[in-house]
Amino acid sequence: MSKVIKNGTIVTADRQWKADVLIEGEHIAEIGENLTGDEVIDASDAYVIPGGIDPHTHLEMPFMGTTAAETFESGTFAAAAGGTTMLVDFCLPGEDGSLLNAIDDWDRKSKDQICTDISYHMAITGWSESIFDEMQKVVQERGINTFKHFMAYKGALMIEDDEMFASFKRCAELGALPLVHAENGDIVQELQQKYLAEGITGPEGHAYSRPPEVEGEAANRAIMIADAAGCPLYIVHVSCEQAHEAIRRARQKGMRVYGEPLIQHLTLDESEYFNKDWQYAARRVMSPPFRSKDHQNGLWNGLAAGSLQVVATDHAAFTDEQKRMGVDNFAMIPNGTGGLEERMAMLWTKGVETGRLTPEEFVAVTSTNIAKILNIYPMKGGIAVGGHADVVVWDPSIHRTVSVATQKSIIDYNVFEGMELKAAPRFTLSRGDVIWAHGQNSQPQPGRGKFIKRPPNASAAKALSKWKALNTPRKIERDPLNIPAGI
Amino acid sequence: MSKVIKNGTIVTADRQWKADVLIEGEHIAEIGENLTGDEVIDASDAYVIPGGIDPHTHLEMPFMGTTAAETFESGTFAAAAGGTTMLVDFCLPGEDGSLLNAIDDWDRKSKDQICTDISYHMAITGWSESIFDEMQKVVQERGINTFKHFMAYKGALMIEDDEMFASFKRCAELGALPLVHAENGDIVQELQQKYLAEGITGPEGHAYSRPPEVEGEAANRAIMIADAAGCPLYIVHVSCEQAHEAIRRARQKGMRVYGEPLIQHLTLDESEYFNKDWQYAARRVMSPPFRSKDHQNGLWNGLAAGSLQVVATDHAAFTDEQKRMGVDNFAMIPNGTGGLEERMAMLWTKGVETGRLTPEEFVAVTSTNIAKILNIYPMKGGIAVGGHADVVVWDPSIHRTVSVATQKSIIDYNVFEGMELKAAPRFTLSRGDVIWAHGQNSQPQPGRGKFIKRPPNASAAKALSKWKALNTPRKIERDPLNIPAGI
Amino acid sequence: MSKVIKNGTIVTADRQWKADVLIEGEHIAEIGENLTGDEVIDASDAYVIPGGIDPHTHLEMPFMGTTAAETFESGTFAAAAGGTTMLVDFCLPGEDGSLLNAIDDWDRKSKDQICTDISYHMAITGWSESIFDEMQKVVQERGINTFKHFMAYKGALMIEDDEMFASFKRCAELGALPLVHAENGDIVQELQQKYLAEGITGPEGHAYSRPPEVEGEAANRAIMIADAAGCPLYIVHVSCEQAHEAIRRARQKGMRVYGEPLIQHLTLDESEYFNKDWQYAARRVMSPPFRSKDHQNGLWNGLAAGSLQVVATDHAAFTDEQKRMGVDNFAMIPNGTGGLEERMAMLWTKGVETGRLTPEEFVAVTSTNIAKILNIYPMKGGIAVGGHADVVVWDPSIHRTVSVATQKSIIDYNVFEGMELKAAPRFTLSRGDVIWAHGQNSQPQPGRGKFIKRPPNASAAKALSKWKALNTPRKIERDPLNIPAGI
Amino acid sequence: MSKVIKNGTIVTADRQWKADVLIEGEHIAEIGENLTGDEVIDASDAYVIPGGIDPHTHLEMPFMGTTAAETFESGTFAAAAGGTTMLVDFCLPGEDGSLLNAIDDWDRKSKDQICTDISYHMAITGWSESIFDEMQKVVQERGINTFKHFMAYKGALMIEDDEMFASFKRCAELGALPLVHAENGDIVQELQQKYLAEGITGPEGHAYSRPPEVEGEAANRAIMIADAAGCPLYIVHVSCEQAHEAIRRARQKGMRVYGEPLIQHLTLDESEYFNKDWQYAARRVMSPPFRSKDHQNGLWNGLAAGSLQVVATDHAAFTDEQKRMGVDNFAMIPNGTGGLEERMAMLWTKGVETGRLTPEEFVAVTSTNIAKILNIYPMKGGIAVGGHADVVVWDPSIHRTVSVATQKSIIDYNVFEGMELKAAPRFTLSRGDVIWAHGQNSQPQPGRGKFIKRPPNASAAKALSKWKALNTPRKIERDPLNIPAGI
Ligand SMILES: [Zn+2]
Ligand SMILES: [Zn+2]
Ligand SMILES: [Zn+2]
Ligand SMILES: [Zn+2]
Ligand SMILES: [Zn+2]
Ligand SMILES: [Zn+2]
Ligand SMILES: [Zn+2]
Ligand SMILES: [Zn+2]
Repeated sequence: MSKVIKNGTIVTADRQWKADVLIEGEHIAEIGENLTGDEVIDASDAYVIPGGIDPHTHLEMPFMGTTAAETFESGTFAAAAGGTTMLVDFCLPGEDGSLLNAIDDWDRKSKDQICTDISYHMAITGWSESIFDEMQKVVQERGINTFKHFMAYKGALMIEDDEMFASFKRCAELGALPLVHAENGDIVQELQQKYLAEGITGPEGHAYSRPPEVEGEAANRAIMIADAAGCPLYIVHVSCEQAHEAIRRARQKGMRVYGEPLIQHLTLDESEYFNKDWQYAARRVMSPPFRSKDHQNGLWNGLAAGSLQVVATDHAAFTDEQKRMGVDNFAMIPNGTGGLEERMAMLWTKGVETGRLTPEEFVAVTSTNIAKILNIYPMKGGIAVGGHADVVVWDPSIHRTVSVATQKSIIDYNVFEGMELKAAPRFTLSRGDVIWAHGQNSQPQPGRGKFIKRPPNASAAKALSKWKALNTPRKIERDPLNIPAGI
Repeated sequence: MSKVIKNGTIVTADRQWKADVLIEGEHIAEIGENLTGDEVIDASDAYVIPGGIDPHTHLEMPFMGTTAAETFESGTFAAAAGGTTMLVDFCLPGEDGSLLNAIDDWDRKSKDQICTDISYHMAITGWSESIFDEMQKVVQERGINTFKHFMAYKGALMIEDDEMFASFKRCAELGALPLVHAENGDIVQELQQKYLAEGITGPEGHAYSRPPEVEGEAANRAIMIADAAGCPLYIVHVSCEQAHEAIRRARQKGMRVYGEPLIQHLTLDESEYFNKDWQYAARRVMSPPFRSKDHQNGLWNGLAAGSLQVVATDHAAFTDEQKRMGVDNFAMIPNGTGGLEERMAMLWTKGVETGRLTPEEFVAVTSTNIAKILNIYPMKGGIAVGGHADVVVWDPSIHRTVSVATQKSIIDYNVFEGMELKAAPRFTLSRGDVIWAHGQNSQPQPGRGKFIKRPPNASAAKALSKWKALNTPRKIERDPLNIPAGI
Repeated sequence: MSKVIKNGTIVTADRQWKADVLIEGEHIAEIGENLTGDEVIDASDAYVIPGGIDPHTHLEMPFMGTTAAETFESGTFAAAAGGTTMLVDFCLPGEDGSLLNAIDDWDRKSKDQICTDISYHMAITGWSESIFDEMQKVVQERGINTFKHFMAYKGALMIEDDEMFASFKRCAELGALPLVHAENGDIVQELQQKYLAEGITGPEGHAYSRPPEVEGEAANRAIMIADAAGCPLYIVHVSCEQAHEAIRRARQKGMRVYGEPLIQHLTLDESEYFNKDWQYAARRVMSPPFRSKDHQNGLWNGLAAGSLQVVATDHAAFTDEQKRMGVDNFAMIPNGTGGLEERMAMLWTKGVETGRLTPEEFVAVTSTNIAKILNIYPMKGGIAVGGHADVVVWDPSIHRTVSVATQKSIIDYNVFEGMELKAAPRFTLSRGDVIWAHGQNSQPQPGRGKFIKRPPNASAAKALSKWKALNTPRKIERDPLNIPAGI
Repeated sequence: MSKVIKNGTIVTADRQWKADVLIEGEHIAEIGENLTGDEVIDASDAYVIPGGIDPHTHLEMPFMGTTAAETFESGTFAAAAGGTTMLVDFCLPGEDGSLLNAIDDWDRKSKDQICTDISYHMAITGWSESIFDEMQKVVQERGINTFKHFMAYKGALMIEDDEMFASFKRCAELGALPLVHAENGDIVQELQQKYLAEGITGPEGHAYSRPPEVEGEAANRAIMIADAAGCPLYIVHVSCEQAHEAIRRARQKGMRVYGEPLIQHLTLDESEYFNKDWQYAARRVMSPPFRSKDHQNGLWNGLAAGSLQVVATDHAAFTDEQKRMGVDNFAMIPNGTGGLEERMAMLWTKGVETGRLTPEEFVAVTSTNIAKILNIYPMKGGIAVGGHADVVVWDPSIHRTVSVATQKSIIDYNVFEGMELKAAPRFTLSRGDVIWAHGQNSQPQPGRGKFIKRPPNASAAKALSKWKALNTPRKIERDPLNIPAGI
């Protein structure tokens, strides 16, 4: 049974035009004028855009002694309600350290729950020969071409520079892309102790102990290591000018570095942590913390300039009760906030409606760019014949106010509470299925989502390999007569 | 009669994939596997890319007391032979100062000669109410959405800052895009006089009198003026880090500024002017002059980073005899070199074959980006159903050495003489016609090219207008009691 | 009769140490422990610093249809009361355009009035052979080694780029230093008209029409011109990051560029112009206008980093009545504010007391650096045997609140009204005379001040000349056989 | 018995003037015209400058399995012959890890040998409570106010980020200044292994394995850590733009960071390592390695701009035989070169004689700035009444060619061999003694040199402490009603 999305204005990362979209099964079959199908989806007065891709979520993640409350079901349904049709979750090795076992675990958790498609980034939280070996299988057998590295969370997820170098080199060999959480974990820990010792135990201490310089430093370091290892690099949750500047410097030298700001950092600022209500402030605790308005402006400009490429959420939702684990010590507050449902509408409202971003740029940073980086474009992230029919009918006439009362997320608050959103999905389609229809009491369809395999060797990685091979240092050939005997 | 381009790998600015392209008449009708048509164009082992767009040429331009030797016929045929299917020439007002008359003149010259499609940028070389009025007609009636401003060539084409501001504001109102030739014309003239007075009369004086700082200054100034006027800006022939840095600074502040390096500046350096053979050096005289290797590296990196968007040629070809007008005075050497035929193959050779650029980036900077900037995408600059069938079968197995003996350009030398090119068009199609076929003795088809109208209000201009309107300074309302009487 | 300043801590730009200062006549005769003299000046619990030098004042200046109200008498007495013992006023050519006549005029006005020493910067407000000729006499006969150039005030003081280049070249020949007021006068005028046309007639329009980008542009342009002309450059009243960044870029390339922030820009911000009381806002109208806190922070950091060297006032005091000339049109409000009396104490309070500056840096930026730049160190600007006894006993225990009621300035308000100052001169000595003693009802001593001649060829100018001569472009010698005949 | 230096031109960091210098015993007693003394030292046609201070030497240092061949005697005598009257050597803890014992060791080695005055920087090569405790004694009892931290030499001297933070915090408490060798030791080791594995065993591998990005990264990291710890920072042997840029960024944010380029990096470039003669290349092996001309230019510009403050040598001289320890493996070549004797004359020749530096800047970067940083100015580093009579009569008419045959250094080569030096000391005085007289067969006077104690709390450190205290984050006070119960 075919569907046709009629009378909308398609917006892609390249352009806008009026056309209908014909869907046959899971795929887009045709784009053009006056198309017909078995079922008509009305897009009059609306845009037709690629389904959003959120490349940074932590659903049901075991972390800081608890587990993120958002489930694969609630999370993917919230995503769908917000216009996001794919997310990439972070898969963390368990106690046995095995990457493959971790993937199996994640599959078990997600498989029967997911309403949208998903993928994983594989975390490298240590280094060993077996990890070196498993990485190949992760890429070639499991279809995961990205590896995450934590430069913070000392004593838990954090790894050292030589381990990063080893893993990055392995990524270069495999055509995979390393990701980093860039904060200097040593210094974060030292500052946490310093502020706690000074009696600063509230959520403001979280912000104080993770200042922008500490993030910028780590970003700069990761970039150097990637350059030395000969691979591209993707820096998650870029929140400040220091990190952004490091990315710009790198790109200006021809390095292939990508930066991902979060919707939270684009729209909320550090004053949230100074709220007199502990719970209010604790709900906003995430790493890196929110920054000042100047940093925000820099991030927005970077999206327009192309020095930053992707807007994500780092969705890691903990309940009020979980947050209270840190009532006496900010360092014990589980790090994370929500945003999966609001990401696209917040970005539209604060970006497109203000003229900071064009509609095309909105599409680029919510789906297309990351699809290219993840090497799944245009299966995902485009409106392309042959690609998956992950399509959103995006309606700028639906305005609503964010409220915990109406959200799909499982948790008991919303960091965007009370903000007005100036667009929403009229329909969200995932591989041809309508999984969300505005005002029609849509329900989660757990288990219909699929895991999407991603091949290695994206175009930028291939070009970089070629350049590095051409420019590798060469041995100086010396006449043995000009080499003395050793001692 | 339909044509099908079979068995190639399509490369667009977004991606690469194997598919056939079906052409009906002037347009692309279908893209897919196993297509059939009346005529088959073999693209086996080759890429299928959008026809190149060179947005910067001066064919038959009256300049510096002579007229550029390259004709619309020879120029557009050279273009076709090199894989370029559209060029944008600079239309200069004549003695009466009328923009519309100048367009008529240019039409007269080009109409019966052009083998490929063309458009014009309209030059603003002075300011008056009639120019203000004519600009509207140029945009709305003549289909030209770009206006060129010369900050150099004092006493001839150069205009002053207040004139630029007035013209840029007019561009903002009309949804048009201003372009600038960025060099400080006052200082260039002073330095010319200084070096001539010191007895430096040879072509090296051309380079000395137009140093990078002089270009960077003007770029920076134009950017400020565009920001104040509220319009985007396109800087032609960006040759140096100073100008590039000004562009990066602007983009980082959210300004909409584009930069266009030339293939010459990407591949040739200032040492050319120090050649002991006067004629050799004089042939390379163009403005800005070639720069050092460091500047070159910066330009390449900018193409990959996205801080520069377009590679052009500034093709303005003067014969050896014409160049000799300046044998006693470098300032009298007609400024300009060729490149229309070599642009795409040089960029491929030095860019894609080295890994500096991906194939997608190659397409972006040779056609797609400029098509978007000029607001004609994807009619031009893409491989898109419904778009013009301006398509090149790009064959990386055809290697050749640049030689004046085999070039299509009318002039008697080639600044790339002797360089090896590692790709060439197997076929060049313009609106469905094969206008160049490798090894088949293709001939010019003058008069078949068309003038392409370009609508105003590209997406970036619209977004910028919205942002500027939202952020315009507001009057402070004061109680009359708080305002004293005047004196 | 000798004087000895006893028991103080001397602070110079280099160091702090406890020592006495013996003064014989106009000069410092000895520095050491346990000195004795005919008269003792008590410096216990105080610092002993070089008298301040304010290199930027406009006393009794004819400007914008009126004349600055501060006289040479009231201005130099206010200076003395604030610890400043020398100022450099801007000498503007009159209608006849003669530089020498202007100096005579300024001498006439100042001679019998000045309580402290003074010098002049000579303004170049046009270009001609007679100006070229007079410049030599100004330097060699009149002892003025600095020339001021206005890039703003179009139609009045402003000059064009080629004129600046000519004047800067002349400065290079004479070993003189050019100064610039850096704002793009064309664009300022255009923006004034734009905002007036939009009905923004109040003082906020002054700020809107002179945005930071407009200043940064001009700074950048002046730097390029100085580099091309081969001379150092001094940029007055640097108010914003854009201009500061241009200075940093230049210095980083080895250019000899200096920047002078004003005490007003370091301590007051743009919100002053949004005050609901017109007169309040109008009093603060000066060019460049005050900026945001971010710009302020940049300026402070530049003083510590050495990218900015001098803190001045641009003291140009107009009365409330004079300000009302612009009640219907902000562009008619006479530009200028006061600060001569408060400069040193404000800088100490906001700089040294906060730890932003060391005491040594305070001395450097209030006197020593400018004395070196003006080539009169250590006659002025130091505590040195043989130098002028321009010395201040600086007492951090004297706190006071700025008030128009107690100020020495002639005008009827104070832009720092109500601020607490955490230091003041206990005694101010000018060439050995006590011209201000705290709490002792000191009175002006008009006519005792002297005009100080300043020789050309400061050390930096000499070094730059040598470097430029070594690195000047060289003619390429070509065999006549390799040069064709002309046409 | 007094001495008078007659008829010279004194040059200090501030100024040049003609005056005589009277020396009584170890100190300067008077500066003025027509002075007389028991002994006359002729300075006609010469400059009189402060004795040079080289703050970076490694005499008789145990390192990489051998011991630097230059002794305290030969090193300090070479220094004197070159115009350097004080050096600061790096004191490394021995196997017991004790700082105080290490100082005793260093004293034992140096005491009877030194011809000039010396001091030590104390190295922190690990972290423990006893080191924490000993640091106080090092500062308060031993007169050492600087602590060196190695970010490279993994497995030997290198320490981790948390250790650096702890040590820097301790420095902040003690008013001491941390120094860093900034290279990422993890990545250096990885790159060494990589290039060795590829068969690159020659000295070029040394350069390849320590690229500029690796140095820039570490500089950036150390700066962040110092900022977090609240202390100033001194970065030794800044060799490249990446590190220099990190310093500029920091200074521009108001951080107190100093950079020290070496005379070798200012004058020699990376091509030295590509020499076909192994021994030639191996002699130049030091860390960081020499860089390209672009980096050199940046360093020179930084000295003039003030973003770099000190020129040192890192004198660590190993013989040809010692260098041959690495004949099969560049990583085994002892790191170090000489320069103590040539530093001042090389800098004068390439700096002052070319106009890159003024004579005053030459003095500043060879002695005055480091004396201020080390908090011993003007006892050392100036020509000041009461200061040590460490004075050089600097004669720009003595030209000589560097040659191992005539050098004072003990080793068997000279990295500046064959270069022409355009100035030399006519006389070098150390605390009033003539320790070198040109052409008079001066001999070493071992044991006359003294260890110079340096007090903590230099002015910049005090100001920074004040600023940090004022700007420390504050606890948010929350009503207990607004803090939930924990879980
Ligand atoms: Zn993270
Ligand atoms: Zn995360
Ligand atoms: Zn041009
Ligand atoms: Zn052109
Ligand atoms: Zn001014
Ligand atoms: Zn002024
Ligand atoms: Zn070192
Ligand atoms: Zn060292």
